[in-house]
Amino acid sequence: MAGAAVKGVAAAPLAAFIRAALERLGADAFSAEHVARGLTETSSRGVDSHGVRLFPHYARALEAGRVNGRPNFRFESRFEGAAVLHADDAFGHAAGVKAMDWAVERARRLGTASVAVRRSSHFGAAAYFALRAAEQGLVGLAFTNADALVVPTRGKRPFFGTNPVAFAAPSSDGEPFCLDMATSQLNWNKVLRARESGEALPPAAAVDADGRETRDAAVARALMPSGGYKGFGLGAMVDILCASLTGGPCGPDMLPMFTSPIAARRDIGHYFLALEPAAFDEAGALARRVAELRARLRAEPPLDPAEPVLAAGDPETAARRLRETDGVPVPEADRAAFAVVARKVGLTLPWEPV
Amino acid sequence: MAGAAVKGVAAAPLAAFIRAALERLGADAFSAEHVARGLTETSSRGVDSHGVRLFPHYARALEAGRVNGRPNFRFESRFEGAAVLHADDAFGHAAGVKAMDWAVERARRLGTASVAVRRSSHFGAAAYFALRAAEQGLVGLAFTNADALVVPTRGKRPFFGTNPVAFAAPSSDGEPFCLDMATSQLNWNKVLRARESGEALPPAAAVDADGRETRDAAVARALMPSGGYKGFGLGAMVDILCASLTGGPCGPDMLPMFTSPIAARRDIGHYFLALEPAAFDEAGALARRVAELRARLRAEPPLDPAEPVLAAGDPETAARRLRETDGVPVPEADRAAFAVVARKVGLTLPWEPV
Repeated sequence: MAGAAVKGVAAAPLAAFIRAALERLGADAFSAEHVARGLTETSSRGVDSHGVRLFPHYARALEAGRVNGRPNFRFESRFEGAAVLHADDAFGHAAGVKAMDWAVERARRLGTASVAVRRSSHFGAAAYFALRAAEQGLVGLAFTNADALVVPTRGKRPFFGTNPVAFAAPSSDGEPFCLDMATSQLNWNKVLRARESGEALPPAAAVDADGRETRDAAVARALMPSGGYKGFGLGAMVDILCASLTGGPCGPDMLPMFTSPIAARRDIGHYFLALEPAAFDEAGALARRVAELRARLRAEPPLDPAEPVLAAGDPETAARRLRETDGVPVPEADRAAFAVVARKVGLTLPWEPV
Repeated sequence: MAGAAVKGVAAAPLAAFIRAALERLGADAFSAEHVARGLTETSSRGVDSHGVRLFPHYARALEAGRVNGRPNFRFESRFEGAAVLHADDAFGHAAGVKAMDWAVERARRLGTASVAVRRSSHFGAAAYFALRAAEQGLVGLAFTNADALVVPTRGKRPFFGTNPVAFAAPSSDGEPFCLDMATSQLNWNKVLRARESGEALPPAAAVDADGRETRDAAVARALMPSGGYKGFGLGAMVDILCASLTGGPCGPDMLPMFTSPIAARRDIGHYFLALEPAAFDEAGALARRVAELRARLRAEPPLDPAEPVLAAGDPETAARRLRETDGVPVPEADRAAFAVVARKVGLTLPWEPV
């Protein structure tokens, strides 16, 4: 597979590198496995903002003690169909998989189940966990809160994080339906990219230091909620599910991911919900209908024939197909950050000849 | 309470009139009660689009047989924490209350529970059902699908309905936190009002007959999703929960509410979810934290001091306080439509002296 034609890095050696590096830095096999899979699968789906570029940061967070690589997970379940997972400052990917798997197991028996997670850390893309339920035939929802970055409607300073909502449902065409959306209009990465390119930001997407709407990425300091008060309300819903339910900190009380001391623990909260489709109709019926619905959406007449209608998740599926052959692009700056970790743990980089 | 100073109609006699009229038209007590309460409480919260103005339409739908006023509700529950309610073409308000009450009862025992509803009809405001859970101390979510009115991102004709998402959580300050949002940027009523006033529509809110964005309400024929592809994805999520789970029709397969024959049944689907906060922390903790969160949001510095930051549901709470004294405004056209029903069933109108 190596050679001049390969534009990116193949997913499997990339995941193997991340897994091995995290283990050498002290993470247990379960944590290392799910961070590696979560980041790599997210990059494979084209969502670079939440993919492997986060690995060097995660490695530093593990070394510094912000994240506990050998967590003692503890489920507290007073009711059969719900639990709190005390995640012991685990990697969010590991905590999220533990929590969603619990919800899936209970939903298979009860129809509906949910888990709130305390004392976790950044979990990457919410889609990873919703898809984990859908790949097992269930409907999955995943939410996380985050540090303050989105201004309330009428407000001037950030309060909630980008607080995403992810939803996935099984589909008989082989690819789950998957929506994963921040409740802000943009993600911060798009602001950073617009700063580099000099492009104007879309309207109603960002504010400056005084809380005034701006289309100039250079002066943007915070984000606006998606669809105005609707995104603000959804962001509040996510914080209530992820923090108010269990007593975790809400947006403004949470340390920022990149600018707070790397040893400081952040106490992020998540919320996961699983539904067993067989509780609502014969097994397999939902997956057939989701495939039909998606086929109908894709066949809707487009406004511009060059831009067909897409269902949620279609851009990610297209990216995954492309990257299965071309690999995951890893920009030079990320390669350098990977190399720092590789030297420290004595591993060969996944793009180096063995 | 009568007199020249009363601008509106007091809620209690309004509800009593609707209840009595529906019973005289053949509805059973449960159906009449919940349509009357649902419409009146929604009007009391200032949401006139989904309030008592719908009553004359509901009365015609009942008379014509679109809606079954004496439904035989049947729960089909193969799993303890989930069920399908076969609603027998009931009023959506009645079906929704039955379904949410089932979810609340099971969530109290299991922590999490949900109900999908088949063969229902228009249920008014989704908030009514989410609030019903929150008023009993639980977190409630309510969703419904609807006939096609919102164009897919990149599409040119409507596919999903306005497919709302409602979320409510208990709060120790006495008023549940409540978000109720269409997944379109506007509701159709705002387009109708802009047609009357001649005001321009906001950007990215409506399209003309060719599917092109327009700010001219006179030529608007369909709505755009809230926040672009995000609202489109949320609308799909709502249709999957309300229709794909059980096999009900999705947006384009559903008869429109006002323009299809009044005897035709519509087979609307709903989905309700309830969470017991005591499954996640000590009883009462969530309600205290929601009250704190709301107080903090309201105290956030506003961009314009004349427009304080509001939490989801605050405008509705303010409207309710006002209307508790001033009554519910019932415009002349609606009064005339009420009068037609009143004559038919031999009842005195709630704004007439007895």
